Amino acid sequence: QSCTQSCTVDNVINLMVKSSAEAIVSSILSKVDMICTNVSARGADVSCPSGYKATSCACGMACGSWDIRGNSDCHCQCRNIDWTSARCCKIGLLSE
Amino acid sequence: QSCTQSCTVDNVINLMVKSSAEAIVSSILSKVDMICTNVSARGADVSCPSGYKATSCACGMACGSWDIRGNSDCHCQCRNIDWTSARCCKIGLLSE
Amino acid sequence: QSCTQSCTVDNVINLMVKSSAEAIVSSILSKVDMICTNVSARGADVSCPSGYKATSCACGMACGSWDIRGNSDCHCQCRNIDWTSARCCKIGLLSE
Repeated sequence: QSCTQSCTVDNVINLMVKSSAEAIVSSILSKVDMICTNVSARGADVSCPSGYKATSCACGMACGSWDIRGNSDCHCQCRNIDWTSARCCKIGLLSE
Repeated sequence: QSCTQSCTVDNVINLMVKSSAEAIVSSILSKVDMICTNVSARGADVSCPSGYKATSCACGMACGSWDIRGNSDCHCQCRNIDWTSARCCKIGLLSE
Repeated sequence: QSCTQSCTVDNVINLMVKSSAEAIVSSILSKVDMICTNVSARGADVSCPSGYKATSCACGMACGSWDIRGNSDCHCQCRNIDWTSARCCKIGLLSE
């Protein structure tokens, strides 16, 4: 953006701030994404690593009845469950 | 970044803008995360609260056959489903 | 923030940068959200579109035993699976 009329220092600074901040935000935002991992364990319960949240659970014995407790703990509800897994995601910068 | 050669006002301002904006952007971005919640209902259907999207569904009767409709509605496909739950997430600032 | 004591150029610039950058970051962040889609296929395997990550899988035959491979591929583990679906999400700007 060029600055045709008489430019007060404010005006100049504001223009510079706006374009600079937008460039920085866009460059950082382009690196923001969902970072996901899987965890599994024997038995009917498993927890996501710290900082992650469970987005779903899977269970052994073909069981589709499960619930998420405390945002990151998967629990499979059927009987004699041999394994439980959790899909765990968080927001992070891709360079992580 | 230090400014060795003769610094024009632009240069000085740009350096200040850049470092200040980066600090602000990083501090705000560090608070961005996935905010998730669970909803469940009797029967074969349940919907996420407004603003949330379903990341998965769970069903009663050990049923693992489900689908997500309209981005936020879980539907369990097996017969005689007694309950349906949805895992619902969105992006937000952690201070929310 | 008003600037009562004698304001150096730095001070003025920093105040302007801070408020302007915060406004820009917040406006852009308000457009950041999870963008999700469903994909399904015959058989026991399906993959999310490029750029998306699987947050969960669903299977035919009421099967709740599945796993996610390579961050975006759903595999249903029960026998004679007729269909597999994946719930796929990524972070994007809502205007996308």
